[in-house]
Amino acid sequence: MRVSIIGGSGYAGGELIRYLLFHPEVEITNVVSRSNVDEYVFRIHPNLRGYTELKFSPLNLSAITSTSDLVFTAIPHGTSAELVPKLLETGIKVIDLGADYRLKDPALYPQWYGWKHPHPELLKEAVYGLPELHREEIKAAKLVACPGCMATATILALAPPMKEQIIEPERIIVDAKIGSSGAGNAPTKASHHPERANGVRPYKTVGHRHIPEMEQELASLTDAKLRISFTPHAVPIVRGILATIHTFPNRNLTLPEVWKIYRSMYGQEPFIRLVKDRKGLHQLPDPKVTIGTNFCDIGFEIDSHADRMVILSAIDNLVKGASGQAVQCLNIMLGIDEKTGISAPTIYPV
Amino acid sequence: MRVSIIGGSGYAGGELIRYLLFHPEVEITNVVSRSNVDEYVFRIHPNLRGYTELKFSPLNLSAITSTSDLVFTAIPHGTSAELVPKLLETGIKVIDLGADYRLKDPALYPQWYGWKHPHPELLKEAVYGLPELHREEIKAAKLVACPGCMATATILALAPPMKEQIIEPERIIVDAKIGSSGAGNAPTKASHHPERANGVRPYKTVGHRHIPEMEQELASLTDAKLRISFTPHAVPIVRGILATIHTFPNRNLTLPEVWKIYRSMYGQEPFIRLVKDRKGLHQLPDPKVTIGTNFCDIGFEIDSHADRMVILSAIDNLVKGASGQAVQCLNIMLGIDEKTGISAPTIYPV
Amino acid sequence: MRVSIIGGSGYAGGELIRYLLFHPEVEITNVVSRSNVDEYVFRIHPNLRGYTELKFSPLNLSAITSTSDLVFTAIPHGTSAELVPKLLETGIKVIDLGADYRLKDPALYPQWYGWKHPHPELLKEAVYGLPELHREEIKAAKLVACPGCMATATILALAPPMKEQIIEPERIIVDAKIGSSGAGNAPTKASHHPERANGVRPYKTVGHRHIPEMEQELASLTDAKLRISFTPHAVPIVRGILATIHTFPNRNLTLPEVWKIYRSMYGQEPFIRLVKDRKGLHQLPDPKVTIGTNFCDIGFEIDSHADRMVILSAIDNLVKGASGQAVQCLNIMLGIDEKTGISAPTIYPV
Amino acid sequence: MRVSIIGGSGYAGGELIRYLLFHPEVEITNVVSRSNVDEYVFRIHPNLRGYTELKFSPLNLSAITSTSDLVFTAIPHGTSAELVPKLLETGIKVIDLGADYRLKDPALYPQWYGWKHPHPELLKEAVYGLPELHREEIKAAKLVACPGCMATATILALAPPMKEQIIEPERIIVDAKIGSSGAGNAPTKASHHPERANGVRPYKTVGHRHIPEMEQELASLTDAKLRISFTPHAVPIVRGILATIHTFPNRNLTLPEVWKIYRSMYGQEPFIRLVKDRKGLHQLPDPKVTIGTNFCDIGFEIDSHADRMVILSAIDNLVKGASGQAVQCLNIMLGIDEKTGISAPTIYPV
Repeated sequence: MRVSIIGGSGYAGGELIRYLLFHPEVEITNVVSRSNVDEYVFRIHPNLRGYTELKFSPLNLSAITSTSDLVFTAIPHGTSAELVPKLLETGIKVIDLGADYRLKDPALYPQWYGWKHPHPELLKEAVYGLPELHREEIKAAKLVACPGCMATATILALAPPMKEQIIEPERIIVDAKIGSSGAGNAPTKASHHPERANGVRPYKTVGHRHIPEMEQELASLTDAKLRISFTPHAVPIVRGILATIHTFPNRNLTLPEVWKIYRSMYGQEPFIRLVKDRKGLHQLPDPKVTIGTNFCDIGFEIDSHADRMVILSAIDNLVKGASGQAVQCLNIMLGIDEKTGISAPTIYPV
Repeated sequence: MRVSIIGGSGYAGGELIRYLLFHPEVEITNVVSRSNVDEYVFRIHPNLRGYTELKFSPLNLSAITSTSDLVFTAIPHGTSAELVPKLLETGIKVIDLGADYRLKDPALYPQWYGWKHPHPELLKEAVYGLPELHREEIKAAKLVACPGCMATATILALAPPMKEQIIEPERIIVDAKIGSSGAGNAPTKASHHPERANGVRPYKTVGHRHIPEMEQELASLTDAKLRISFTPHAVPIVRGILATIHTFPNRNLTLPEVWKIYRSMYGQEPFIRLVKDRKGLHQLPDPKVTIGTNFCDIGFEIDSHADRMVILSAIDNLVKGASGQAVQCLNIMLGIDEKTGISAPTIYPV
Repeated sequence: MRVSIIGGSGYAGGELIRYLLFHPEVEITNVVSRSNVDEYVFRIHPNLRGYTELKFSPLNLSAITSTSDLVFTAIPHGTSAELVPKLLETGIKVIDLGADYRLKDPALYPQWYGWKHPHPELLKEAVYGLPELHREEIKAAKLVACPGCMATATILALAPPMKEQIIEPERIIVDAKIGSSGAGNAPTKASHHPERANGVRPYKTVGHRHIPEMEQELASLTDAKLRISFTPHAVPIVRGILATIHTFPNRNLTLPEVWKIYRSMYGQEPFIRLVKDRKGLHQLPDPKVTIGTNFCDIGFEIDSHADRMVILSAIDNLVKGASGQAVQCLNIMLGIDEKTGISAPTIYPV
Repeated sequence: MRVSIIGGSGYAGGELIRYLLFHPEVEITNVVSRSNVDEYVFRIHPNLRGYTELKFSPLNLSAITSTSDLVFTAIPHGTSAELVPKLLETGIKVIDLGADYRLKDPALYPQWYGWKHPHPELLKEAVYGLPELHREEIKAAKLVACPGCMATATILALAPPMKEQIIEPERIIVDAKIGSSGAGNAPTKASHHPERANGVRPYKTVGHRHIPEMEQELASLTDAKLRISFTPHAVPIVRGILATIHTFPNRNLTLPEVWKIYRSMYGQEPFIRLVKDRKGLHQLPDPKVTIGTNFCDIGFEIDSHADRMVILSAIDNLVKGASGQAVQCLNIMLGIDEKTGISAPTIYPV
């Protein structure tokens, strides 16, 4: 399959290129970066030095459509909203890593993103690219909208208890910790090493834009009205998200029951590991152990003192939270083994 | 005042020595460390090289009692329970940095710490060394039990809303992030640099031992039955705690009301800063900005989407969470300016 | 090929297991760890969770020899000196990751390591496992002694100029910076996160044990008497070594000449990248870009002000500095593509 | 003394403000930052929240000259060259933290900085603000040009052996490691957290601009022709410089001789600590132990294997490398205790 990447100079773009260069069913035909035209890809993504002589191209739609069967878009939100329909109308399939086609309800865009969606008719058609919830629709999708990284960690952790309706749906707290690569590769004051190192900085304590997609996906699993309380924190790691999810069971729960609920939903999932061990340093999920992998590690604990259930969910924000998940969707669309090209274990320690 | 420190080789002990060396009203007469007898203090606390020729002494009670008016104990929990009464009976005052005299109810020790308290009669007499709640009692105290670091951050953040009874008392989530110095100076697998760096590790997700002191202190401010849901995380910073506290108001709250509640309780407090700014990178508390200071920085935000109030509380675990607070208590006991010796601003960035 | 690993619980052992689990020509039959007998491998190496149900075995020589064609030993120096001959005499090949068979001159062991070698007759037979210098001998070797991590970075950087005799051989300064994983997985004061973070600590400023192997290998390339000045520093990264090598050319050198010297020696090497770029952030080697790969990245610069040539050499200490290089040797011994199983690019950023 | 700071929003400016706010002989009258006019100082330097209500002013020369006795300039190189004479001609004294008045030979500016000095006549008059070498001249100076951070660490380490002429003067290697705050507070690709973390990046491997001031100052101590080989590295710490200086003695040296040479020059210096211990983790200088202090810690080791002497020199780049040293100069100019306001020990660990 001939594949182009639009937005190849960001961190998610770089990871996509890394995966696709070695994917047995894929040939990369274009890597677009408007700000790096004619530059070697390895100058921006230094890990690829020695692996490819690819250069970045300008955004030339006809060049792309004439040489691609599928396009990945990894560009700032608001920009793929306009670009994607132009690609689709030439018969090309699109996997969008941005937010522009994730929400079903067009009214949510002005509310959460501050702009009106130019192609609301496409929102219904787009498939939310979370294989664990939408595998069948992804198989036949023309447009896949990959989830946000925070949303991936949160939805996967909450889907089983939400489906089983075992927790209070309006008292769900998601306290997330995220690495610096999550904010992209453009230097800012917040990402400046002297500022970012040695601190724990809460940001977007309320109103984070991944909330509506979390609620959309989780609401589809239950009849209950639910609301997500979400607060992220910038921690001094480069990669990884840990979502610590505090929930209140609506009845007495035992650990075996919870195990059963998670196993029954995820027992066959290739990229979900249930991590709740009795020994060792790594008894619960830690994003450190997912770095460079497409895993979502999920664990849980019951707090009998406060009648609480804590759920932990760890991913690599650039892999299961972005490019790895996009390749997982591609594999599903291609009808091949879902793990193709994204199954290697991570190095440890890192 | 002649002061001894028992347990001078740990991180909290080192910070105590640093503060007391320059305290105008204090003369350090003994620094006890059983494992470092006759070693220069600066060999263990290298920041003190050039400042003192003090050496560590063995634990010799008569040597201590004959040369001290007050003793700080910074030793493992369970050990000061036995030692403190011996000091008190000689008329010496004690400021204990450990957990052994923090809880009023003796039954909590077997439940949370796994041992029976050998001197339950002293628990009533001991004053919980949080000046913002117990300043008057500290003035006259013979035995001050300084709060745990996690408890300090949590109690100070929650005291105003708890006192005003504006939040649901059984749906209080404290999600804490703590630096590696919080676990002391003894190397362990969990503190091994290759393991600790680049990760976010949840631990003691339920059942952390600082919970009963949080509940004890907060319960004293309200009639409501309250329960704290507490989960800490090891993050790759050396110093600092951020407590992110998710609460659910029991009525509609406006930001000016919340400001007023915090200002009315803390407006005159020398070591509490309300940090809720509209500009800049540091609009809410970040432990990075408290490193090396005795401040507890507190901020808050109202989440109208989920009817939640987020409270952020940041401290340096070794200062306001341990040694700085102990010196603050000392100053109160001495009847001098509470800020004596602990008022310098931190360096930035660090 | 049936392979056993003796010393499977350390960081190098963990990386070996990771590589060998997916190596097409290898079956792992035993992973020995005396301190973790019967424990799941993934409990110690959490990145392998979900990939293998292997458990650690005790050190049982007959079990190993009856099920192995080749054994990797990754155990403390001094211990493989005794163990290796027992394996060899059963006809098993050995790749030793320790120091015990690296030096040809038995007199160097008492001098640098403080013990007398029990099997000096084997030192001649052992092949120093640096493929770039000893590929032909490795092919037929029964015992391969893999280089130390510091030695690998240093020798590879210096071999071309040493062979061409273009630098002063007694004024060679190697200033190394190494990550915390280099000291192994046993917690110590030096590796304690609060101590290691935020510092740059020189150690073994003189007398480091990798010096004699550097000198042995480089001396074999030249007639000149040479001496290596070597000083390492502990820096707060987990993985990687940067060797900054300051040399003084013995004649005027131009950059094209230096390029030619390195290209002529390394132009065909699969795991050496010459990194000297004119653009971008990564114009010279940085260990960050080698994390998780078997590359040695080498760059250089000529200092016309001080008549100096700086050579930079970066590796991942656990891969090209240990396990990756061991697998490279294995591939050579097997007569297969040298890159088998160790060719994947690293993730970036990490 | 009424003091103004021009360039108050950078990291060095922030540290100056911190020191001067609490300096008993100083009143800050203006803090100039063109990009932050009318902003509270604590919004940019968050550690000062609660300590000052100062705001940044525009650069208004008459406002400054009418309210100042002395001005600190902490502005980009090239800009103080023009500004300083305007201040001096009003009778105000100036302490410049930039490079514009450090070099005595005007020809060095075009060569190393790429611009012609507009006021070469002032270069003779300016005093290089390194108290350990120029204390007497600083006392009477009208214009003090504070050394660069790299130069401070290097010159202080090399002055004693250079003065005693015990090392080869053309084979001096300075291999420096520096934290991210050294590059200032403006975000760049190189300072972007995902890029800076976990790496060791050589930069300016040849031709660094601090070389001419190192050579100027060290040449003044000896008759020998000397040349400095200097290469810095960006390491993932925020504060601190470690200069590892590799030298070749021109005769046999013993450790007691070296001790004597350093003691005789620095025995009375308030801000130099000789750190060469036989026990503990901190036997040699580490910048971690100087964070937030005005110390330069110096240690050394003799390498009998390679006839080398290694000298280690550690400072906080923003304190002894910038603002602390500037205050030290101020104290000398004021004729007061040189340690005034800059004598507190650092916190540890940090």
